[in-house]
Amino acid sequence: MTLEAEILGGLNAARSAARRLALAPTQQKDQMLALLARDLRASAAAILAANQRDLTAARDAGQGGAFVERLTLTPERLAAMARGVEEVIVLPNPVGERIAQWSRPNGLDIAQVRVPLGVIAIVYESRPNVTVDAAALCLKAGDAVVLRGGREALATNAALAARIRAALDKAGLDPSAAMFVNNPDREAIRIMMHHPELIDLIIPRGGSALKRALEGSAVPILPHFDGICHTYVDRAADLRMAEEICFNAKCSRPGVCNAMETMLVHCDIAPRFLPSMSQRLAEAGVELRGDERACALIPQARSAVPADWDAEYLDLILAIKVVDSISEAIAFIGEHGSGLADAIVTEDRSAAAQFQREVDSATVYVNASTRFTDGFEFGFGAETGISTNRLHARGPMGLRELTTYKYLIRGTGQVRV
Amino acid sequence: MTLEAEILGGLNAARSAARRLALAPTQQKDQMLALLARDLRASAAAILAANQRDLTAARDAGQGGAFVERLTLTPERLAAMARGVEEVIVLPNPVGERIAQWSRPNGLDIAQVRVPLGVIAIVYESRPNVTVDAAALCLKAGDAVVLRGGREALATNAALAARIRAALDKAGLDPSAAMFVNNPDREAIRIMMHHPELIDLIIPRGGSALKRALEGSAVPILPHFDGICHTYVDRAADLRMAEEICFNAKCSRPGVCNAMETMLVHCDIAPRFLPSMSQRLAEAGVELRGDERACALIPQARSAVPADWDAEYLDLILAIKVVDSISEAIAFIGEHGSGLADAIVTEDRSAAAQFQREVDSATVYVNASTRFTDGFEFGFGAETGISTNRLHARGPMGLRELTTYKYLIRGTGQVRV
Repeated sequence: MTLEAEILGGLNAARSAARRLALAPTQQKDQMLALLARDLRASAAAILAANQRDLTAARDAGQGGAFVERLTLTPERLAAMARGVEEVIVLPNPVGERIAQWSRPNGLDIAQVRVPLGVIAIVYESRPNVTVDAAALCLKAGDAVVLRGGREALATNAALAARIRAALDKAGLDPSAAMFVNNPDREAIRIMMHHPELIDLIIPRGGSALKRALEGSAVPILPHFDGICHTYVDRAADLRMAEEICFNAKCSRPGVCNAMETMLVHCDIAPRFLPSMSQRLAEAGVELRGDERACALIPQARSAVPADWDAEYLDLILAIKVVDSISEAIAFIGEHGSGLADAIVTEDRSAAAQFQREVDSATVYVNASTRFTDGFEFGFGAETGISTNRLHARGPMGLRELTTYKYLIRGTGQVRV
Repeated sequence: MTLEAEILGGLNAARSAARRLALAPTQQKDQMLALLARDLRASAAAILAANQRDLTAARDAGQGGAFVERLTLTPERLAAMARGVEEVIVLPNPVGERIAQWSRPNGLDIAQVRVPLGVIAIVYESRPNVTVDAAALCLKAGDAVVLRGGREALATNAALAARIRAALDKAGLDPSAAMFVNNPDREAIRIMMHHPELIDLIIPRGGSALKRALEGSAVPILPHFDGICHTYVDRAADLRMAEEICFNAKCSRPGVCNAMETMLVHCDIAPRFLPSMSQRLAEAGVELRGDERACALIPQARSAVPADWDAEYLDLILAIKVVDSISEAIAFIGEHGSGLADAIVTEDRSAAAQFQREVDSATVYVNASTRFTDGFEFGFGAETGISTNRLHARGPMGLRELTTYKYLIRGTGQVRV
């Protein structure tokens, strides 16, 4: 069987399973998740053995460090995965929610009701926990899920996907609702992205190579790509608070999309703020790149070049610019930000209000770290990804963002005049 | 200046105008709309003269009938356009609406607030009223609008767009917020669809040629394409009501997307229902195409071929099928419907509930005509188009569907652990 025939066969089965899963009661979906959590614990040995095969191949290919670390499953990580599935059980089922309801003067009763989106494909890279997290969320939302992980985690992902399909089966649901693409070639993505009649949405979770691979997709994409986040330290900032927030935004996990990449500092407080802030960052190993005024105040800084203002470092590097006003900061963020997460630190209410009004980013913070841009931190109970799109969903996504709606209209014989 | 340079210049200006328009107060937007309505009446002579030029060109090109009729402006139609703009004034401004608000255990306060989408391009065909309707709605929602109408209405649309830009200017808003693409070539669409950084959404309003022209668009599209709508007459239907509903769904305006294309009839009531229903449809000039059982009951019918079950006639033609059960009807709709509007006629509550639950269409009716699938009829106060998409917006679209949201987070120094 060709790759295309194999994938289209799986997608057709997923489409048809999605229609039935959309009607499954909450209890049946939750039972499936409970079985999955139990099975992940019970099958730990087999899953870890599969992971060993991936790890051996990765080391043979000369991979190491962070790559191998992301790929590695341990009994603890498997247990955390199982707990993650159990956390999805307690989330309310979004399907069937009445979003709105109203009557028309002609007596028609209209209800807007939440329904599953259909078939969602997750295209991701080496972290195998995405296999289980994404499947649990999609299935709870009543969507069929198509899992296409990276080459490096193929054995691990296949073992995990087998547990998901087994749990669906045991709960009396169609295992085709979780399709695993057991082929790591780009060709598999190319085939998937040309079938909008079989896939309703692709959620990519990966870097710029994945972004390029998905160019020209006929299936809608909810991208999660760049995160160039700013923190603006206002003239009216509590400088001690500003230092804690900026340090956290830069250093707590520099490799993620909600980490700060550029710090903007009001000129009035820059001389009091920058020296100690910079020293603390430098001691934590952060490379500092400043504009002229920043460099004059920071002994450790080297001069930023224009590309620094548009860089997503994902590393212990920080661009620093001194600005003359909040308006300059807002305009700078509008020009250089990626619209994901930006923060102001200020005690001035009107400055805070102006910043939240005028900065057009998915998440706009006053006196908190941009690192909170995350489904868990927002209380969505699970991480479905973070949309950098403006359509459908923006920012952290929960179960609701994996659904759509339909209108149910009841009449008593009304016809249109 | 090349076409590309001209279009990109306009789009860049629109993008920048959109940022400011997003912050414009309701009153200023409404004042602009009031000025526009007044100006449409005051400038009637000039607009009608422009329309005469389009009509002359259309007649010279051998066009006639429905085409010329759609293109024609009259003083009455202009007055209706002005009233349409005034109706948008009274609609609530969606921008700034608090969609949700909650607090997190760590004290973060999160508000989800509605904001404009950005820059919306409307690509439409000959009806010039779309120019004014679409612009009024987009601008009220705080979005910049890019208007790209058909070749045949170029002079009319240009005259109308000039009034819109004048109204923006008089109200102290940037006229670049309404860009008119004064070029009817497909090349203009091709340029637009490759700039997702300048256009957030394309809403196409037209036929299959437009659909093909937009294939491969890098800008997200909210399509409004096929409408293959069904009415299922259940065994428990009030047959008199069913006749009125089906007649209305087929005959009140056969050329629109929410008109019925296929009628499904339960076998138990088919002998009592089909003869009189068919006679009435035939008398109204409807061509009837039935399956074997339907043809046996309808003297006027000819045999349907398989393509009839997937046809969007947009004409006085109706496909008719006799089914054995509601489940067969639902499965048939799932296979052949376009997911826009489908109806059941029944007095049986459980059949109605099953139909509304299992039919996965944007609008699912009990005992009413599918013709109600329309923004006006839903009470959205305006017609922005009807989405056949599952993402972002589904079914009739109002002002809200022209917006997105952002999260505003207030803290007191929270950092992420």
